[in-house]
Amino acid sequence: MDSVLYGAAYYPEYMPYERLEKDVELMKQVGITVVRMGESSWGLWEPEDGRFEYAWMDRVVGQMRKAGIKVIMGTPTYSIPAWMYKKHPEIVMTRLDGHTITYGMRQNADLLNPTYRFYCERVIRKLAEHYKDNPAVIGWQIDNETPPGGAANKDVQDGFVEYLQHKFKTVDELNKVWGLNYWGQRLNDWTEIPPEGGILNPGWKLEWQRYAQWITTDFLAWQASIVNEYKRPDQFVTQDFAGPPRPQVNEFDISRSLDIVAVNPYHHAPQDEYDGEDSSYEGDYSRSLKHTNYLVTETNADTIGWDSKSQFPPYDGQLRLDVYTHLSSGANMVEYWHWHSIHYGQETYWKGILGHDLEPGRPYQEMSKTAHELRRIGPEIANLKRTSQVAILYSSDSYWGIEFMKFSDKENYRTLLRQMYHVLYTSNVGVDFVLPESTNFADYKMIVVPPLYVASDALLNKLVEYVRNGGHLVMAFKSGFTNEYDTVRWTTMPGPLREAAGFHYQEFSSLRQPLALKGDPYHVAEENKASDWLEMITLDSAQALAYYDHPFFGRFPAITRNSFGKGSLTYEGTVLSDALQTKVLLDVLQRAGIAGPDQNLPPSVRAKHGTNRSGKMVHYYLNYSSQEQTITYPYGAGTELLTQAAVAKSQKLTVKPWDLILIVEK
Amino acid sequence: MDSVLYGAAYYPEYMPYERLEKDVELMKQVGITVVRMGESSWGLWEPEDGRFEYAWMDRVVGQMRKAGIKVIMGTPTYSIPAWMYKKHPEIVMTRLDGHTITYGMRQNADLLNPTYRFYCERVIRKLAEHYKDNPAVIGWQIDNETPPGGAANKDVQDGFVEYLQHKFKTVDELNKVWGLNYWGQRLNDWTEIPPEGGILNPGWKLEWQRYAQWITTDFLAWQASIVNEYKRPDQFVTQDFAGPPRPQVNEFDISRSLDIVAVNPYHHAPQDEYDGEDSSYEGDYSRSLKHTNYLVTETNADTIGWDSKSQFPPYDGQLRLDVYTHLSSGANMVEYWHWHSIHYGQETYWKGILGHDLEPGRPYQEMSKTAHELRRIGPEIANLKRTSQVAILYSSDSYWGIEFMKFSDKENYRTLLRQMYHVLYTSNVGVDFVLPESTNFADYKMIVVPPLYVASDALLNKLVEYVRNGGHLVMAFKSGFTNEYDTVRWTTMPGPLREAAGFHYQEFSSLRQPLALKGDPYHVAEENKASDWLEMITLDSAQALAYYDHPFFGRFPAITRNSFGKGSLTYEGTVLSDALQTKVLLDVLQRAGIAGPDQNLPPSVRAKHGTNRSGKMVHYYLNYSSQEQTITYPYGAGTELLTQAAVAKSQKLTVKPWDLILIVEK
Amino acid sequence: MDSVLYGAAYYPEYMPYERLEKDVELMKQVGITVVRMGESSWGLWEPEDGRFEYAWMDRVVGQMRKAGIKVIMGTPTYSIPAWMYKKHPEIVMTRLDGHTITYGMRQNADLLNPTYRFYCERVIRKLAEHYKDNPAVIGWQIDNETPPGGAANKDVQDGFVEYLQHKFKTVDELNKVWGLNYWGQRLNDWTEIPPEGGILNPGWKLEWQRYAQWITTDFLAWQASIVNEYKRPDQFVTQDFAGPPRPQVNEFDISRSLDIVAVNPYHHAPQDEYDGEDSSYEGDYSRSLKHTNYLVTETNADTIGWDSKSQFPPYDGQLRLDVYTHLSSGANMVEYWHWHSIHYGQETYWKGILGHDLEPGRPYQEMSKTAHELRRIGPEIANLKRTSQVAILYSSDSYWGIEFMKFSDKENYRTLLRQMYHVLYTSNVGVDFVLPESTNFADYKMIVVPPLYVASDALLNKLVEYVRNGGHLVMAFKSGFTNEYDTVRWTTMPGPLREAAGFHYQEFSSLRQPLALKGDPYHVAEENKASDWLEMITLDSAQALAYYDHPFFGRFPAITRNSFGKGSLTYEGTVLSDALQTKVLLDVLQRAGIAGPDQNLPPSVRAKHGTNRSGKMVHYYLNYSSQEQTITYPYGAGTELLTQAAVAKSQKLTVKPWDLILIVEK
Repeated sequence: MDSVLYGAAYYPEYMPYERLEKDVELMKQVGITVVRMGESSWGLWEPEDGRFEYAWMDRVVGQMRKAGIKVIMGTPTYSIPAWMYKKHPEIVMTRLDGHTITYGMRQNADLLNPTYRFYCERVIRKLAEHYKDNPAVIGWQIDNETPPGGAANKDVQDGFVEYLQHKFKTVDELNKVWGLNYWGQRLNDWTEIPPEGGILNPGWKLEWQRYAQWITTDFLAWQASIVNEYKRPDQFVTQDFAGPPRPQVNEFDISRSLDIVAVNPYHHAPQDEYDGEDSSYEGDYSRSLKHTNYLVTETNADTIGWDSKSQFPPYDGQLRLDVYTHLSSGANMVEYWHWHSIHYGQETYWKGILGHDLEPGRPYQEMSKTAHELRRIGPEIANLKRTSQVAILYSSDSYWGIEFMKFSDKENYRTLLRQMYHVLYTSNVGVDFVLPESTNFADYKMIVVPPLYVASDALLNKLVEYVRNGGHLVMAFKSGFTNEYDTVRWTTMPGPLREAAGFHYQEFSSLRQPLALKGDPYHVAEENKASDWLEMITLDSAQALAYYDHPFFGRFPAITRNSFGKGSLTYEGTVLSDALQTKVLLDVLQRAGIAGPDQNLPPSVRAKHGTNRSGKMVHYYLNYSSQEQTITYPYGAGTELLTQAAVAKSQKLTVKPWDLILIVEK
Repeated sequence: MDSVLYGAAYYPEYMPYERLEKDVELMKQVGITVVRMGESSWGLWEPEDGRFEYAWMDRVVGQMRKAGIKVIMGTPTYSIPAWMYKKHPEIVMTRLDGHTITYGMRQNADLLNPTYRFYCERVIRKLAEHYKDNPAVIGWQIDNETPPGGAANKDVQDGFVEYLQHKFKTVDELNKVWGLNYWGQRLNDWTEIPPEGGILNPGWKLEWQRYAQWITTDFLAWQASIVNEYKRPDQFVTQDFAGPPRPQVNEFDISRSLDIVAVNPYHHAPQDEYDGEDSSYEGDYSRSLKHTNYLVTETNADTIGWDSKSQFPPYDGQLRLDVYTHLSSGANMVEYWHWHSIHYGQETYWKGILGHDLEPGRPYQEMSKTAHELRRIGPEIANLKRTSQVAILYSSDSYWGIEFMKFSDKENYRTLLRQMYHVLYTSNVGVDFVLPESTNFADYKMIVVPPLYVASDALLNKLVEYVRNGGHLVMAFKSGFTNEYDTVRWTTMPGPLREAAGFHYQEFSSLRQPLALKGDPYHVAEENKASDWLEMITLDSAQALAYYDHPFFGRFPAITRNSFGKGSLTYEGTVLSDALQTKVLLDVLQRAGIAGPDQNLPPSVRAKHGTNRSGKMVHYYLNYSSQEQTITYPYGAGTELLTQAAVAKSQKLTVKPWDLILIVEK
Repeated sequence: MDSVLYGAAYYPEYMPYERLEKDVELMKQVGITVVRMGESSWGLWEPEDGRFEYAWMDRVVGQMRKAGIKVIMGTPTYSIPAWMYKKHPEIVMTRLDGHTITYGMRQNADLLNPTYRFYCERVIRKLAEHYKDNPAVIGWQIDNETPPGGAANKDVQDGFVEYLQHKFKTVDELNKVWGLNYWGQRLNDWTEIPPEGGILNPGWKLEWQRYAQWITTDFLAWQASIVNEYKRPDQFVTQDFAGPPRPQVNEFDISRSLDIVAVNPYHHAPQDEYDGEDSSYEGDYSRSLKHTNYLVTETNADTIGWDSKSQFPPYDGQLRLDVYTHLSSGANMVEYWHWHSIHYGQETYWKGILGHDLEPGRPYQEMSKTAHELRRIGPEIANLKRTSQVAILYSSDSYWGIEFMKFSDKENYRTLLRQMYHVLYTSNVGVDFVLPESTNFADYKMIVVPPLYVASDALLNKLVEYVRNGGHLVMAFKSGFTNEYDTVRWTTMPGPLREAAGFHYQEFSSLRQPLALKGDPYHVAEENKASDWLEMITLDSAQALAYYDHPFFGRFPAITRNSFGKGSLTYEGTVLSDALQTKVLLDVLQRAGIAGPDQNLPPSVRAKHGTNRSGKMVHYYLNYSSQEQTITYPYGAGTELLTQAAVAKSQKLTVKPWDLILIVEK
């Protein structure tokens, strides 16, 4: 893209009175360049079975085109019309517990249901046919935040048996990989597979989750293939991920069907806690899926509110700062949800740029400032190329494996994953995400691994090779414990990792109370805490970095490091406090030779870097606080884009509260 | 009435052995004047389908008549016999979630079910016919604490569609008022209305609640109309409200069908916390429904116990003090639930005047003292006329609107309503309740309005007129936010109230931590706290009474006052601490010119005033504490009724622990 | 038995690869003498309907026989095969709430279902026929930890009506004992009995629980009768109780069908909290059922883990110490669950003697030490005869009665029962359990009675006679409150106990805050706390041991004692703190003349005593702490068995951390 896009979702059909022209006029004034429309209103596209209406949208698209505002058109399949539920209530999901939901909630369909698919295909073809040649339409969003939803209707249950037949060929293979001799529950043939609702077997449940992921992947690939039959070469197909990484879906598989990834990153915390981390986390993940820029299709305008009790409109400056947070993560578009607030329905407390009075107010003014700024500087920051030397390995299988066999009430795969990201984010270490199927481990100097509880031998060996070839791996407890079927390995732990890790263990213990590391080796005072879980590690070739301070557990190391091949493997046999995790990761960063001046910034300042379309380095310094901050600029001379001021290397610069400095090197 | 009635509910049919004569003898000795009977025992009235038995009750009524004890007879419809469930299990409720309950619990019927109605009508006619001429029977209680119960049986769902057709005429009107374009869920015809269970739309859910209220109103009006065909002119029809105001029912509509309102006020707190507030709250509300005296059909005897874990028998004096609490609120009768304790069933821990041994004990002795006192002074305090200068506006619609879109986990419509009542009660300000449909706003100098979240333009304009004509209005945040369909207004807030309120706002914020008011303007020290919610108010003509102490929110006033017409509107843009709420309300009371000596009593003493049948002023001073209290009597000379002592104006008087002083002016 | 047995449950069919010979070799090395097998694998015994396979087990039993390891064979009925669920899904339980579970969980069958019974009988007969002559098989375990499971299928509901007909003869009897006039729910005939799900009546619910107990009792008696047709005279039939006493089953009735009682006592707390109490509690109860020795069929090997978050492998020494804990309670066998850890299924975190790598490790080494020790000393400690002078009266009826009418959120029948046991256990007072139907009350000098809420007149009179004849009874509040139908007595409380107790009461109160006993009569300082419940006791002939420190409740005694006949009845009218309970019980112990040197041991040392097969006294001193402890040995000269050292009376002895001393008198 030659500049960044800035806009909002727009639903004129929700308005309590006709005001299209006024809205478009306000959009032009505020400086919007893009709107997303149509994805929520199947009942308007197709008010009765087989009767299609376009006029209501044609005039909107027409006005947008006239105003020079680009349009992303959505397929409206996430919310079925009332007439469809009346005719085909079987479309709606039955849950694993046998409960069938009734109409009212959106995203209530069994995505495999053939009747639903029939209706989806027809409406998608109609819309694609109708708008494919419209020059205002730059791309297509297929469905919306598609989840697996937990459907367990009969066709979903039957489909699971087919899925298993395809993957495992024989029930004897299932008997073997899931150990169905246990409790004497072995299967004689495929007809004996009971409904999923009562299943306790972890391997079986994991396969159901993979199947649930596949349903969503398949549904979206199918939608994309239909749109692809129609769309112009210059139009894109996207899907807007909600809260990725989200173990219920497989964003990586889905993204193969997309031209560009979109994401809807929301932050939910009170204003004082806004620090850009949520936006960056989802951005870094989205950027990693196709190793390139992405779109933000929805994000906080004023307040967000499925939860009407958590309304946190931005302080002055925060709305704009969040736009640059997205752009510095590699976004090429930022769209709010949504242009206007709604007066009816579930989302009346999800406020748009315009409040309920549909008049410009504080958010509109801040959007206006930002939009006009972006019109000016957009070309210099669009298509930002981010390059990371550190990656986090994300495994949704491990999320599920640990959910099925929790090691703690408060810690889980997600908290560990997020702790590792948090430590790197607040230390200003740029990261990508890699996945078990990634083939680019070697691109990174350092890979950080949250508990890799479910992993094939092949994946573990790939990590071993990474270390052997010079990589620096930091790995959490429980890694390698089960194979790809969530079956515990019958070798001494950590299984295939043993040589690279340089230790082994046979036992582990829960910790009801935290333990200190003996002698506080990382000097973190009252933060010197290991908790929840402890592996009773015996060293082979590794060195112990820390031991527990305890009469019995004191003989086991808490953190180990093994030099292996040209690299190193650092292992955490327990849950570390944030302070300890920071020390451990920064220590490895240092050893990997990739620490630098970004690790010495004031605590509330985040630095992000990339290369723009002209190949010039772009440096962002974002201040997430109500206090002015001072930094020393360590890179080459350049121009501060927002003020157009020249900046010299080593110059001291001031970042205002909830503001940023944005420098392009010469 | 020429005196007050005092008695208990009585169930000789529950007794483990025959003891009617002994009970009646004990009742005579203790001094009882009334019993309520018959409402719980359909299975005895009609042991088999169509076979009716009266003899078991005739002898009880006969004994009562002989003993000079009056009888209130109940229609026994709240608990269906086992034979009826066996024949017609469809009578029993199906819940919104589709779950059908089974037999065991009382109040389990779908009140719209025609079979149930058939059985109800037959048994009511039989009983009314049988007892209408019995001179002991002074009145009829129809059903018991009738709730809507949450039935969602098919006939209830079908009835809802009819209700909607009647009220809204076309589905297009529904599409409009509920905004059904949202998520594309618009309706083409009435057959497309899905079952209520899955509905999320707030306006739709509110209408369902109104429909549920209507079901109860209709059921009771129908019962009243049947009894009215039979009853003597000197007999009354009543219904005993449970825990009013109760948003699940519409007591105001129901009371139109009643000759007199009855209420069952229970207090549930431990003994040390007994302060008469619960009894007074329900009493003030009940008195306001028909603007006259009411009956207490049930209240605490010894312990109450659906919750067998919360057993709090009264300290010495509390039982009697509670009787005078009811009478001073305008009750003309106090009946305990119940005469004797029960040995079986759900309510074995709900103890009566007689314990499980059915022998006189401590509660019996205290009842005896009170009863004999009332026989003496009853004629001087019966029919107490209470006149209030302050009213609280109660809106069950607003309760539901806020429930559907909560602004806090701990605060809600009920807590705000109750806080406002509590502040006035503990300040000894007598209050009435008014409702949105009330036409007597002008009778009050001051009206206090908890968050009036759901309100028609007409209601808001009525409040504006009240202020314009000299009324003093105190109004909480969120008032006027939605119209009568729970749809957010599309004007700048507070909509039609804006001119009278003298300010406007477009945004609001949740507060995770309380904020102080800048400079502690009300001098409440550590109670200086605004919490949970904050409206970002911009003043037009109003003055700010207080601002927040906060870098960002400090620009918005927390409390405003606007002089408008001849009156004033004081607005609270946030949740105030009890101490702040007290200061704000007493300040307006002062400005309304209705503050007086009652605001200077010791903290545990409550004063209540009224006029007796002779038009003489009656003054109650009730001491809710274990310590003796001293007051200075500020009114005209009179007689202390309990001691018959003469009392002079400005005399210092002592109120003993858990005791009272009761003065009639000369 | 001529020695104690020591071993583990063994499931070669669960292994990921063939390793029978290796396992047996390891078993021989470690010193195992017994394995339990076969009870979990119906699907292997009968892979298809009517096809039976024995070869897989024959080779295992053959290897065991060759290795001299005894076998307990289980009937495999607790977990049905998948093919059976497919053919007969109706076998699986429907819950009281109407929810039918699906396949996956074990113990999912309706035990009354005739199809299930048909399949059970066939497989049991096949197995019994096949193995009855195998010399390795020493006994039979029928089913496994059989619970009632909460089935409420139609046949269970129908069976309940039959059960009621059999017990109560007429519905009028039900109307009477359950007081069905209440809410007018009286029954005309048996067809009017509604499904149990909605029943609130406590007496009715209690009878359902007794029926549920009966189902399990009947199922196991039936299994035992089938096995008894086949088994050799030298083989035993047992059932392994889970967590007894367990009010859902009636272990006493079940044990009548067993040759020997087995129990699966697990401890769940973190390592530092291991104190042998759980093992001893279940052991004392199991021993009391048939007044003789019992088997431990399952107990902690390394970690236990339906809850994978609570993994607590034993500290060094704890595994062995727990074996002696069981043996000193009267166990004649200790078997771990299980030999090896499992790699699949629900119990992957329930670790065996071998870890997941199936290699010897720390637990194996500790088992080896213990096993070889037992081979040496087993004959001297087997068949330990325990004799107690104190008993605890356990009433599952009272458990249910209080559950239906709770007196506290945190205290209940189980907590009071357990507090009384705990106080006696930590005071080294050996106890038996007695039941309402026991006829041996007179064998005990002192009987301790947790709240005996449900009790017939006959039981209360039996307790009165016990006191009259010289027994010392300590009894908690609420005792005698209801009769055997959970109906509150209509006499002054405590009903038939009144004369022996020497007091009466009519009222009671919940306590939201604890009260102190006036003057701290037991000198327990901040532990001086009565809480939750208080009976307003009036003394007749009893003396008050303590009063409450409270203005109102101060008039009522908290603890009373009455001399009656030759004995005494001490009554606790409230919940006492542990410290107070200890003082009260030790005081009565003293008065009963049975206090001794065991009450003066260090806090972490437990003493247990018995007589061995040669009639010699055996004394155990077990140290449940990480610190060495010193004791003075007060009994006759003997030999310390583990060290073979001679021990003299009054000798000072040292017990090492998590270790024991075991002395046999000469």
